[in-house]
Amino acid sequence: MISSIARVKNTRSLIKSRMSSTAALVEKTRGTVKPEKVLTKETMNPFVRSSEYAVLGALPSRAEMIKKMLKTDPEKFKFEDVVFCNIGNPHIFNQKPITFFRQVTSLCENQDLLKKENREIVSQLYPEDAIERAETLLHHIGPLGAYADSKGVYHIRENIARFIERRDGYKSDPETIFLTQGAGDGIQSVLELLNQPAQKTGVMIPIPQYPIYTAALQLMGAEPIPYYLDGTNQFALDLRRLEQSIKEARQKSMDVRALAVINPGNPSGQCLPIENIREVIQFCHQERLVILADEVYQENIFWPQQYPFHSFKKVLKSMGSRYDGQELFSFHSISKGTVGECGRRGGYMECTNVDAEVLQELYKVFCIFSGANIQGQIMVDLMTNPPSQGDPSWPQYKREVDGIQSSYHRRAQRLAECFNRLEGVSCDEARGAMYLFPRIRLPQRAITEAVLNGISPDSLYAMDLLNETGICVVPGSGFGQEPGKFHIRCSFLPEESLFDRLCKDIEAFHKKFMEHYKD
Amino acid sequence: MISSIARVKNTRSLIKSRMSSTAALVEKTRGTVKPEKVLTKETMNPFVRSSEYAVLGALPSRAEMIKKMLKTDPEKFKFEDVVFCNIGNPHIFNQKPITFFRQVTSLCENQDLLKKENREIVSQLYPEDAIERAETLLHHIGPLGAYADSKGVYHIRENIARFIERRDGYKSDPETIFLTQGAGDGIQSVLELLNQPAQKTGVMIPIPQYPIYTAALQLMGAEPIPYYLDGTNQFALDLRRLEQSIKEARQKSMDVRALAVINPGNPSGQCLPIENIREVIQFCHQERLVILADEVYQENIFWPQQYPFHSFKKVLKSMGSRYDGQELFSFHSISKGTVGECGRRGGYMECTNVDAEVLQELYKVFCIFSGANIQGQIMVDLMTNPPSQGDPSWPQYKREVDGIQSSYHRRAQRLAECFNRLEGVSCDEARGAMYLFPRIRLPQRAITEAVLNGISPDSLYAMDLLNETGICVVPGSGFGQEPGKFHIRCSFLPEESLFDRLCKDIEAFHKKFMEHYKD
Repeated sequence: MISSIARVKNTRSLIKSRMSSTAALVEKTRGTVKPEKVLTKETMNPFVRSSEYAVLGALPSRAEMIKKMLKTDPEKFKFEDVVFCNIGNPHIFNQKPITFFRQVTSLCENQDLLKKENREIVSQLYPEDAIERAETLLHHIGPLGAYADSKGVYHIRENIARFIERRDGYKSDPETIFLTQGAGDGIQSVLELLNQPAQKTGVMIPIPQYPIYTAALQLMGAEPIPYYLDGTNQFALDLRRLEQSIKEARQKSMDVRALAVINPGNPSGQCLPIENIREVIQFCHQERLVILADEVYQENIFWPQQYPFHSFKKVLKSMGSRYDGQELFSFHSISKGTVGECGRRGGYMECTNVDAEVLQELYKVFCIFSGANIQGQIMVDLMTNPPSQGDPSWPQYKREVDGIQSSYHRRAQRLAECFNRLEGVSCDEARGAMYLFPRIRLPQRAITEAVLNGISPDSLYAMDLLNETGICVVPGSGFGQEPGKFHIRCSFLPEESLFDRLCKDIEAFHKKFMEHYKD
Repeated sequence: MISSIARVKNTRSLIKSRMSSTAALVEKTRGTVKPEKVLTKETMNPFVRSSEYAVLGALPSRAEMIKKMLKTDPEKFKFEDVVFCNIGNPHIFNQKPITFFRQVTSLCENQDLLKKENREIVSQLYPEDAIERAETLLHHIGPLGAYADSKGVYHIRENIARFIERRDGYKSDPETIFLTQGAGDGIQSVLELLNQPAQKTGVMIPIPQYPIYTAALQLMGAEPIPYYLDGTNQFALDLRRLEQSIKEARQKSMDVRALAVINPGNPSGQCLPIENIREVIQFCHQERLVILADEVYQENIFWPQQYPFHSFKKVLKSMGSRYDGQELFSFHSISKGTVGECGRRGGYMECTNVDAEVLQELYKVFCIFSGANIQGQIMVDLMTNPPSQGDPSWPQYKREVDGIQSSYHRRAQRLAECFNRLEGVSCDEARGAMYLFPRIRLPQRAITEAVLNGISPDSLYAMDLLNETGICVVPGSGFGQEPGKFHIRCSFLPEESLFDRLCKDIEAFHKKFMEHYKD
């Protein structure tokens, strides 16, 4: 522990000395000497400067550095390798891509494989339905190397609409669907539409939250308005807290325009009950808020009987014509679920009850930046329309998906049990998503030491965990947490074979940490 | 013509009636009735509302509509199909992707192809060097489905740096290179860094210009400051015009922070001479402006002996230590050149002499949105490191690239000749890029009619051209043009076999148009 604290101190003095040299430079420029650079941290966009993003912040930077050091000096740390539990990145832990999906993408890339003269050889390598799917996709896409419609290939949007209809039982219109480069891209575009730079635009966001919301709002100079999920009750969404939060924001003259909700929850892993979703919709309708429903974990559901996934679209449509004007943007992604194709950057958003002129404006923005990449779009097509029973690829597809899902469930439970065995730690089970968000009751001495060193107490815990065990998690403060409560977010994505070591290391570390800081 | 003008009139009255119904709705909301939607064109971000993007504006929308109508009623127009000359989208005109590139991407997608047991079959379909390249890339990338470093895969950044070094003869550091989703993505990020929302931030942009600059600046509430390229002199960049432009902007209290330059030019097709680039760098250094060099057409050079491409980086580095502080962002893309992979969204930017802390902040923004898609990154690797002489794929690669380049050259010349034969039209040859930007001296009656109908005269011409011939171009006003001068931008990408018809149709249309509007 001592070593990591010394390091933090060094970093802080380094930062201080850098700041003073910068200050000197700025001072200099007030005289006659021209400063060297036009663009410095001092003169850049202050919204960019002040935005924060913890998922890839100080902890993961340190983790990357340790990883490099281990390559040249494998004995430097007490562990052999870094375990990246800071990010929902399944393939990094040897989760295999879905075979059928990659067969199709590979055929789309090399159309020589689809030529008649190669058919005999190619059918030794590819199943018939993969070849057919590639042919269908290419027929509709046209040349793979050309710009697609900036909203996305129409055929793919039609397939997504059918997927949504099967899921919800309500109509979906392909014209209201936009293909995106991951969910974050769509979220940013919608926040951009909502922002009124001349006013104090506010968007309600859950705390804890996936920090893209805060970051995107900060980048555009808008205000995140936190509403706290109830950590004592499985991070439920409590209506009174919403009311309290909007009241306070409006008292500060904020123009509160939208509410973001993450379901299943990230980092908190809850699945909202249908009654709760209804309440949220009523609240937004009453308060005239656009709903942003981040549903990227809709496939990661661990107790489908008790805690199923309900889409906001489905619940909204079930509430009758009174809510026909309620605007809803729903986001989905290929990065999560059993697909896990994070590197490809793909996703979609569905715009329900959104004004036609606004959709046209959104389309214009997509045109400016040329829309989503086609390789991501193809993966969205595959995710929303996988092989069905009877297809040649069905048995393998089913086996792969079931294998991933059941393993996620086992890993989630096992890690929660591990955390719950620790002194002062309480951890809800994950009902959805890919993370646990245990609360850690830190000893007062640890809190004091952290505060003295200018870092949050959960960061102190997480940094020590990393330095001692190689396990990289994200401090709860990166997602927001109730004052005085400390958490970490830890993904349960490492391969099951690593779990013995993972749990043993966490337990040993925690014991030592508590011992060291005991009051 | 009459028909299209009638249509314009109808559209205008439709817009008017829509506006008044919206006004009525807004009026209503001032009373007790709540408006239906929270987010309307009136209440959305005004910067988004007022941003413009002509490349995919009214003309292409109409073109898409005509294309649909032709499907159900092939007799409806005098032509059989729409020819999309509005956008630099080579593959739409049957330009084949580079075989080697797609072999590698297809192998990367389906790693089963690289397994030992499949090697024998696979080597009947793929050359050895494609298999090797895929193996090397995957070795460095790790799992293709995982998030890459948000800056891009380090190995690919190293390869890009080596490409830049070979091109320029000066060192390039992989740490200053960011992989992007097309050049536009990088341009937007840099403009975002430069923008100071509390001040009137200005960025100098060439007129005519590719409109992503104006659009991105408008979206963030910053000001494009135009400098006119000299249309009477091959759209040369005249230093006096730069000086004039910055002087006027500063008189209006603009904080002018950067200058964007497009070389080879889009839409104007010029290649800047080395002396001119030097002057621009001196000007920016003198005036303390960051340089944004958009060099996406660096491979589309038609007279390499007389008008070669010089990168801003190379010229800057050649100017000695006095310019060591001059900040330069250079952009490149996989969408243009002979690659033409527009749909994949890939590119890179190199940041020369940029402050280390600023690079760190830029990295943070890339982290928030998870960086560039890996399929685009792989294509950047291939573009910057294609097969070399001696490799099994070299002969085919060389044949393909030479074929595309020489055909571009022929098409560019042929289309310029066609335009120059027309009454009142003058058209510079294209020295680079993919477009011609002929100036059209329109009859006064056409100008008056356009003005009466509330559209720009060049839009009237372009809309009539579309309705009469199916050829879709972009009106010059979409790129900006000197007051009173009218242009269109027309790509020369259609297949050579279409050129007879294309030129014949343009000539016949132009004659009829001039006849109709003659004074």
